[in-house]
Amino acid sequence: MSATMKALRKTQAGKGLQIEKIAIPSIGPTDVLVRVKATSICGTDLHIYGWDRWSQSRIKPPVTLGHEFCGVVERVGEEVSAVRPGDFVSAEMHVNCGHCQQCRLGQAHICQNLRIIGIDMDGAFAEFVEIPASNIWKLDPVIPEHYAAILDPLGNAVHTVLAGAIAGQTVLVTGCGPIGLMSVAVAKACGSSIVFATETNEHRRALAKEMGANYVFNPITDDPVNKIKDATGGTGVDVLLEMSGHPAAIQQGFKALRAGGRASLLGIPTENVPLDLVQDVIFKGATVQGIYGRRMYETWVQMSALLKAGRVNLDPLFGERLELENFEAAFAKLQSGLAGKVLMYPNGLRK
Amino acid sequence: MSATMKALRKTQAGKGLQIEKIAIPSIGPTDVLVRVKATSICGTDLHIYGWDRWSQSRIKPPVTLGHEFCGVVERVGEEVSAVRPGDFVSAEMHVNCGHCQQCRLGQAHICQNLRIIGIDMDGAFAEFVEIPASNIWKLDPVIPEHYAAILDPLGNAVHTVLAGAIAGQTVLVTGCGPIGLMSVAVAKACGSSIVFATETNEHRRALAKEMGANYVFNPITDDPVNKIKDATGGTGVDVLLEMSGHPAAIQQGFKALRAGGRASLLGIPTENVPLDLVQDVIFKGATVQGIYGRRMYETWVQMSALLKAGRVNLDPLFGERLELENFEAAFAKLQSGLAGKVLMYPNGLRK
Amino acid sequence: MSATMKALRKTQAGKGLQIEKIAIPSIGPTDVLVRVKATSICGTDLHIYGWDRWSQSRIKPPVTLGHEFCGVVERVGEEVSAVRPGDFVSAEMHVNCGHCQQCRLGQAHICQNLRIIGIDMDGAFAEFVEIPASNIWKLDPVIPEHYAAILDPLGNAVHTVLAGAIAGQTVLVTGCGPIGLMSVAVAKACGSSIVFATETNEHRRALAKEMGANYVFNPITDDPVNKIKDATGGTGVDVLLEMSGHPAAIQQGFKALRAGGRASLLGIPTENVPLDLVQDVIFKGATVQGIYGRRMYETWVQMSALLKAGRVNLDPLFGERLELENFEAAFAKLQSGLAGKVLMYPNGLRK
Amino acid sequence: MSATMKALRKTQAGKGLQIEKIAIPSIGPTDVLVRVKATSICGTDLHIYGWDRWSQSRIKPPVTLGHEFCGVVERVGEEVSAVRPGDFVSAEMHVNCGHCQQCRLGQAHICQNLRIIGIDMDGAFAEFVEIPASNIWKLDPVIPEHYAAILDPLGNAVHTVLAGAIAGQTVLVTGCGPIGLMSVAVAKACGSSIVFATETNEHRRALAKEMGANYVFNPITDDPVNKIKDATGGTGVDVLLEMSGHPAAIQQGFKALRAGGRASLLGIPTENVPLDLVQDVIFKGATVQGIYGRRMYETWVQMSALLKAGRVNLDPLFGERLELENFEAAFAKLQSGLAGKVLMYPNGLRK
Repeated sequence: MSATMKALRKTQAGKGLQIEKIAIPSIGPTDVLVRVKATSICGTDLHIYGWDRWSQSRIKPPVTLGHEFCGVVERVGEEVSAVRPGDFVSAEMHVNCGHCQQCRLGQAHICQNLRIIGIDMDGAFAEFVEIPASNIWKLDPVIPEHYAAILDPLGNAVHTVLAGAIAGQTVLVTGCGPIGLMSVAVAKACGSSIVFATETNEHRRALAKEMGANYVFNPITDDPVNKIKDATGGTGVDVLLEMSGHPAAIQQGFKALRAGGRASLLGIPTENVPLDLVQDVIFKGATVQGIYGRRMYETWVQMSALLKAGRVNLDPLFGERLELENFEAAFAKLQSGLAGKVLMYPNGLRK
Repeated sequence: MSATMKALRKTQAGKGLQIEKIAIPSIGPTDVLVRVKATSICGTDLHIYGWDRWSQSRIKPPVTLGHEFCGVVERVGEEVSAVRPGDFVSAEMHVNCGHCQQCRLGQAHICQNLRIIGIDMDGAFAEFVEIPASNIWKLDPVIPEHYAAILDPLGNAVHTVLAGAIAGQTVLVTGCGPIGLMSVAVAKACGSSIVFATETNEHRRALAKEMGANYVFNPITDDPVNKIKDATGGTGVDVLLEMSGHPAAIQQGFKALRAGGRASLLGIPTENVPLDLVQDVIFKGATVQGIYGRRMYETWVQMSALLKAGRVNLDPLFGERLELENFEAAFAKLQSGLAGKVLMYPNGLRK
Repeated sequence: MSATMKALRKTQAGKGLQIEKIAIPSIGPTDVLVRVKATSICGTDLHIYGWDRWSQSRIKPPVTLGHEFCGVVERVGEEVSAVRPGDFVSAEMHVNCGHCQQCRLGQAHICQNLRIIGIDMDGAFAEFVEIPASNIWKLDPVIPEHYAAILDPLGNAVHTVLAGAIAGQTVLVTGCGPIGLMSVAVAKACGSSIVFATETNEHRRALAKEMGANYVFNPITDDPVNKIKDATGGTGVDVLLEMSGHPAAIQQGFKALRAGGRASLLGIPTENVPLDLVQDVIFKGATVQGIYGRRMYETWVQMSALLKAGRVNLDPLFGERLELENFEAAFAKLQSGLAGKVLMYPNGLRK
Repeated sequence: MSATMKALRKTQAGKGLQIEKIAIPSIGPTDVLVRVKATSICGTDLHIYGWDRWSQSRIKPPVTLGHEFCGVVERVGEEVSAVRPGDFVSAEMHVNCGHCQQCRLGQAHICQNLRIIGIDMDGAFAEFVEIPASNIWKLDPVIPEHYAAILDPLGNAVHTVLAGAIAGQTVLVTGCGPIGLMSVAVAKACGSSIVFATETNEHRRALAKEMGANYVFNPITDDPVNKIKDATGGTGVDVLLEMSGHPAAIQQGFKALRAGGRASLLGIPTENVPLDLVQDVIFKGATVQGIYGRRMYETWVQMSALLKAGRVNLDPLFGERLELENFEAAFAKLQSGLAGKVLMYPNGLRK
């Protein structure tokens, strides 16, 4: 094993990313070194590439990006016993502190001292990545490598869908980016009866159909609230899965929600959202849930079980597969909005 | 029994109320006639008295007001077997349809065809009131008459407090009107650890202390968010019980809520409320619940058990007790904001 | 409409049943008269036919049997508004009192004054059956008549499967009679990952496979506990759905259950069952649920949604379809243990 | 700090314990060394003293006993940051593996590779004890030292009481050993309405009254099932907290449980228990929970909040306080069955 490796990094404040040769991490006693097989680009990576306001306040260059990946364990620290070299793994990239109130209550995903690998620490867009052993998630080899590379966003979807009852429920997914599309598939796999989806982008509307949505609406031109009311006997949907972060979509979603329904919010609005709390929440007796990350590690257990049993088909989601060196093409592809999940291979496309 | 009775009614569109002599209701086969002992005036009754916009759109005069009461069963319809003349009773005044989706799901309190006795039908500010047998709630005679008269708002408090975990929880009650004050007492009775309360009115802040609140703040001058954070080791409260409907209180409440906490909203804002969904709900992984009415009839069971066991002391809440004829004095007293619950006795103060 | 109808009845204490001509029920003001389309024979009907000990203590002849059915509303009482002549319906045959503690808590399915139509009152093995309006369940016409006839046992299965988390869960169904078989299909439809089933009868084991079970074992010869442990990485199943009532199956089920798992018991043992509470429940931190009937009416909502969306395929379950007059053949067929659900048509096989 | 310390140990297979001088533990990088202040003797320690069958199969001498304690942190390993010398602490003595299915699901208390300090590893009946940092529980100094010494059994009680709804619930505690008595106090503190208790020992029945039980029965002579039914209007209790492990008490508890109730089982029977599953679980729609240990660490959070707020009075429970050297007297006292919690002080009675 050579002492250096290539990594895709933000090397200085400003737009863009660079491939660099850096030292392979020398892991600590409770850590694991993973040889990265496949990685996937998240919308957050696009923001960091573009160096938007949020990135400027959060990212401290130099740092290696990448938090969606899978790989094979190369080496483990001396105190690590549950993971072994050769294991096929992915990882939860949110590193929790273990001692705040939330960690103590089994809510580590909202740990108050959370640090994220690929954001706050060097990530997986590299030949190797260092991960705390407790965050390593061992995978059954039947799970395909490209599925294993996107467990981070799939976990968002599974977390959101399974945050309440779903079997026999009517569901509205607002926003059909990758996580919204995955949510459609997961909801259907878990017994939802009718799945509605709204999305402004025509290409994504077609994908939503492919993922199993029963009705797909353009939220601007299709009057989805009334159509959903009609299709549910005037009642509205049991479950709203909000994936867009768009204020109008959020408001539309709440109008389509039935009294007593559940609204699970994952999409991130960029401003305050005026809500009609009286009609949409209080008189409705609605339950609104903020959803962040993946439950550690209940969501991973559920997701792995669904994948291992072949219950969720994500094939329509995958787009280009490129070498890490072609990152400019990969990021451009994703930026276009037409690609599904774009995969990059730091150790080459052929294993 | 004479054929007529006195009743306090809205007889025409406009401000004010009138005492009238009207026929004693002739009940149907599944109904119950109750001789009213004690009644209590709700804030909603003040709105109807004042003939505000909501009242103008909802109230169809003539109608007898009054939905907080207790009494003794006078007569039952021929198909009624579970209630008998002489029973000491109160009633759930929300009459549900029984066949909408919500009714079928055990969420009758948010029935989509709800009608309210004392709002949409003749109420309890009268010598007698007619109630569907299914809505009658039989009371243990150990429960005092003045407590029995305010089970409607106490049920709101119990519903809100017990909508999630409360034992060992830190709690913030925003707004210390009667229901907020009851919530303080119920939360303490049910094992909450520290109860914080905010309220602009000095008199009510003193009452909050009396009901058991550990810390009571003026939300405008006391910087409650930071004080609550300090008192909870920087974490924030586990539970927010929003009782004010005031946008600033709602926003303050959300800021004081810990990540992973529960916000139960009962207070009714009069306009849209801009929420920082990202910081206050989504990243916090918070659960927000709209609370309406009382669960039918789980809340009644819980409330009766707490009262029968003497677990909740509401004595500080009671103000004036007057004959129904003195309704102008009673309404004026309540309007002043300094009275607690003002009781009126349609059949006289002495039984 | 003629004044009499034919009905299949237990006319006297003793074995067997008789077809009789009896008066068409004259319904009360809150009741509904249904013209019966299709009925299905329950195992309980076999017990009553055979006049076993339980039947002798419970059944008061003369009484018309039959509690699994569908039909079309013929006439409604004067106080009934939510059901209309011509509606395609089935019904919850458990009639609850509405005022016991359980009814008040939304647990009407375990009402302490329950009476069952077709057991304690005249049932649906007749041209017409009288049902309280509140128990009528309106059906979407897309639901096939033969499915509509077996909603009572399907509701048992849905109630059991959905009494806890099911998505992504490994499941063991012990006992593959009709309800066990339905449970296999419902569990798969609701996202369970791997479904194991045990059954002594070879024919039923084949059906279990057809319904979607991943592994089907003979509980006597196949050592299912060890095989399940092997297939779950040594952990055991997340969920046990006990459908047999057989002590050995119950014990085997508990041994196969993982620590922290859920055991939902629907099958009825005929004697006390010695349980290893320490190893199987306490040290395991297991949750054991007694399941009875169908939640009124949450289960009906869920079941209807699943059926309307075509999520559950029950086709392999159906056996013979006969006129009511051929009841001896129908009962014999079912008694043989090889038939699935045997249907009888009181108003003739052709509508 | 001297290199050796005194410790109370099982030095060889057989009855009895010995005080020995052994080396002070040299802690690892993620461990904490605690100077023990107060310890308490558990029933399990009595079993190990007496060398019963269970002890013979589980205990591998030599080992220091003691798993109920509090102390002050003396030293921390180099990777420990959240705990500091001087912190007042107790600890969860169940050490979980972190990677089994149960650990991954947030059910670490039923980890499949659990090891217990004071059973499988050297415990707290010594001047110092070594604890993994993650198991250390920091205590607010307002919590009295003798309360801090018994958080292990108090956690059992809190875990059991809060395993389901408790506010406004009627409760039966079967068995009034220390954990049963604590459960009475915790249930009352958390809003239970009426608490019934059964216990054969007269002294403990008196203590149960003192802890707040409303009714205390001798299970053999008092016919508690009928008395409980009478006191609950024929319904039975909402919640059974089984603390005895005695088959007759378990059966009695189930008979006293209402339909739809919760039975939480903590007591450890020594043999299989024949249960009337049909009448007591299935037809009742009951929920039965096996309770083991304390939820890690939700129970600790709840318990600390209740104690810090002064909601639970345990004073009547405390008996003798002795130096560790007087262990024979301490064990004899506890063996007599009349003592409450007997405390031993390894570093002397005066701090």
